Amino acid sequence: MNHPVPPAAVRPRRPFPDSLLAALKAAFAERVSTSEAVRTHHGRDESPFDPQLPDAVVFATSTDEVRTVVELCARHRTPVIPYGNGSSLEGHLLAVEGGVSIDLSGMNRVLSIDAEDLTATVEAGVSRKALNEALRDTGLFFPIDPGADASLGGMSATRASGTNAVRYGTMRENVLGLTVVLADGRVIKTGTRARKSSAGYDLTRLFVGSEGTLGVITEVTVRLYPQPEAVSAAICAFPSMGEAVRTVIETIQLGVPVARVEFVDALAIRAINRHSNLALTESPTLFFEFHGTDASVQEQAQRVDELATSHCGSGFTWATRPEERSRLWNARHNAYFAMLQLKPGCRAVTTDVCVPISRLAECVVETEADLVASPLPCPIVGHVGDGNFHVAMLIDPTRPEELAEAERLNSRIVERALRMDGTCTGEHGVGLHKMAFLVEEHGSDAIDVMRALKHALDPNNLMNPGKIFSYRA
Amino acid sequence: MNHPVPPAAVRPRRPFPDSLLAALKAAFAERVSTSEAVRTHHGRDESPFDPQLPDAVVFATSTDEVRTVVELCARHRTPVIPYGNGSSLEGHLLAVEGGVSIDLSGMNRVLSIDAEDLTATVEAGVSRKALNEALRDTGLFFPIDPGADASLGGMSATRASGTNAVRYGTMRENVLGLTVVLADGRVIKTGTRARKSSAGYDLTRLFVGSEGTLGVITEVTVRLYPQPEAVSAAICAFPSMGEAVRTVIETIQLGVPVARVEFVDALAIRAINRHSNLALTESPTLFFEFHGTDASVQEQAQRVDELATSHCGSGFTWATRPEERSRLWNARHNAYFAMLQLKPGCRAVTTDVCVPISRLAECVVETEADLVASPLPCPIVGHVGDGNFHVAMLIDPTRPEELAEAERLNSRIVERALRMDGTCTGEHGVGLHKMAFLVEEHGSDAIDVMRALKHALDPNNLMNPGKIFSYRA
Repeated sequence: MNHPVPPAAVRPRRPFPDSLLAALKAAFAERVSTSEAVRTHHGRDESPFDPQLPDAVVFATSTDEVRTVVELCARHRTPVIPYGNGSSLEGHLLAVEGGVSIDLSGMNRVLSIDAEDLTATVEAGVSRKALNEALRDTGLFFPIDPGADASLGGMSATRASGTNAVRYGTMRENVLGLTVVLADGRVIKTGTRARKSSAGYDLTRLFVGSEGTLGVITEVTVRLYPQPEAVSAAICAFPSMGEAVRTVIETIQLGVPVARVEFVDALAIRAINRHSNLALTESPTLFFEFHGTDASVQEQAQRVDELATSHCGSGFTWATRPEERSRLWNARHNAYFAMLQLKPGCRAVTTDVCVPISRLAECVVETEADLVASPLPCPIVGHVGDGNFHVAMLIDPTRPEELAEAERLNSRIVERALRMDGTCTGEHGVGLHKMAFLVEEHGSDAIDVMRALKHALDPNNLMNPGKIFSYRA
Repeated sequence: MNHPVPPAAVRPRRPFPDSLLAALKAAFAERVSTSEAVRTHHGRDESPFDPQLPDAVVFATSTDEVRTVVELCARHRTPVIPYGNGSSLEGHLLAVEGGVSIDLSGMNRVLSIDAEDLTATVEAGVSRKALNEALRDTGLFFPIDPGADASLGGMSATRASGTNAVRYGTMRENVLGLTVVLADGRVIKTGTRARKSSAGYDLTRLFVGSEGTLGVITEVTVRLYPQPEAVSAAICAFPSMGEAVRTVIETIQLGVPVARVEFVDALAIRAINRHSNLALTESPTLFFEFHGTDASVQEQAQRVDELATSHCGSGFTWATRPEERSRLWNARHNAYFAMLQLKPGCRAVTTDVCVPISRLAECVVETEADLVASPLPCPIVGHVGDGNFHVAMLIDPTRPEELAEAERLNSRIVERALRMDGTCTGEHGVGLHKMAFLVEEHGSDAIDVMRALKHALDPNNLMNPGKIFSYRA
């Protein structure tokens, strides 16, 4: 790799005192690592940036242990970076100022499943798949699916969402409460297991999306949902992106309670065909999933079929049997890896924007024109029911001009979304990569409010410093 | 009335400088009032507390005018209390330290309806009914219904919800963005019209539920929903509260997407019968509403009918024609005024708790035992699909012992909800009345975090001081 962090994100590393390392070793013994391999692993994520290594990694197994690390770091004015499954996409995990990475993957206990209440409480290191595995016999499921098997702590910290969000919401809507270790080592619980509350400031939502900059999330209570009695899937090809997206817009506007609606462009379909040895029509395609009773999923599919037909969709096929559904959806699920194979040896610079749904067709069509004119292969996929889409810009990591081209495209896509009253990131977060766009989106006074909140909770700038917005202690 | 604010909420009034009044008059002329009648009207809400008068009331008509008032007050270190429609229930609007009440009812313009995006942006003084009136020809509606015709600004500030929340969420889920005048007069916009975002701290959710203590909300962008193709209503009587509530629990656990499910106890039904000249069975009763297609509302009603029957529900009647539905629901809608007539000249001390749904039956049944043993008539109604219920304790305002009894019952109800991992307020907010319970619910460290946030945004404690938690500038 050869993709340094953006200039605005370059920060001086802070000293890492021997006395801190000694104290950590005394407390955690072999669960402290300073090996280069471990530090490298923890100094990167799925972003294209070169790693920025923490000085040490501590493998914590309890809230109390996290508190110990945070207190020791606070005493030595040393940064703390929480690490879940390493699947974030915008440089969230890079130790740009050095410090201690707290690996929470050992905090992998499902603490309680309250099936009657449709809630579960887990340690932050539990992944979404592990949670769903634990729920297997309950008739319930946790719907949020960002693609990667991210940890629930990390998903909370980035306000993750994914394919099911159009029906079930994002982490914003589905986290009921958190346990958080604050910068000074105090431990708070936010929220209760009640489904709604008007009791004071919404601390839960303050920490959801804070990307580790306000404290370390160590436990998460989430909402669960009954597994739908019936599930059906559908796939449909369109002559143009515009027709596909307009089908989605009308589906949402009609109030069809679609559980998933995913857009995949022609280039991504070609990649999927090659990767999965399929023969899908290589044109813009929508994948749908419907949840409900037998009768209601049938009704939903029929309505969407009618809408798709009116937009020249062809080959609308729907499937209710699990193996048929899997066949349709596996293609979508493998899209990311399939796309990477379009250009051997490439890395993907992925961008993520979200716009009001009426602007989605215009936004995607204008973006397509940009991408067609670019030398880079850039497939588009999207959770279009929310107005959210991603572009994967496939670059040769050894060629700086391709990186520059990807960043140019990224800027144009984000600027376009902001002009359309959208957001610079629908679900990936800001990390190191979108700090400048954040200011543009919210305005400098709103960013100053965020800085004031940061100052209130982390005056010495110890919690994942250098992320989201610039801040000086 | 004779119900002073709780001792913990008693605060010294701050001086009200002549120079501030002169400056306000220069800026707002006849839209500044210091008349006792106007100040009294703005110094109370629907809580049972005696009014606490502001020193002046300003009728603002724009964000810019609100900014002017806030800046003048900031310069004179004078409190500011935003006033919408005056329907809050826990003393939110009382000027416990004096200051200026900003009446926002003149900010009543619907700024935009973006039907294709299912969003609308309104000034803070627009009421929910006015918004729905403006939406009449769009095929859309705004579902949040706290009973009173509250303003959207006030509903945001108290994180309101109501009967539809079980299906459509609360203000927490349905506010996309806000315009807020901060304590120092800066104006920020939070959020965009994108349905989801991971772009920085969730300032929208920080202000939703902040009860005017962090800034003045002047504009609100909300989500809208397509009017359901079909709506059906149902009513069913049960031999006991437990059976009624267990029917609700199973409805939710089965994932029936019920739009409303309201519990009304036997005493409230008796009140409704008298008030509306009806002959409903005077036993615990559930009111349901189903939204969807013709087929799906039929299916939902059948399922709930089966569940109700298995819990000895009787006389399950359902109605799809608008006039039949209105007949059923009018009874529920008039419950509050009907209940007041149970005891001529009374006032209602209303409490509001919310528990995990598995504990709801136990919570309601134990509460019922308390109420039966009390000399006060205390009907129970609730948005039970969320685990939320209210008790209206009907007191003679001239008899302090009845007030004391109501507060005793209130304490027991809240303590019980907290023991069951619930919240001290599901939707009414903290105001002056539940400050002590808030500490119990969240713990003092979490309240200190709230204080730190308050300090970050309003260091001089000018924004609706004395509410939610104690704070010293």
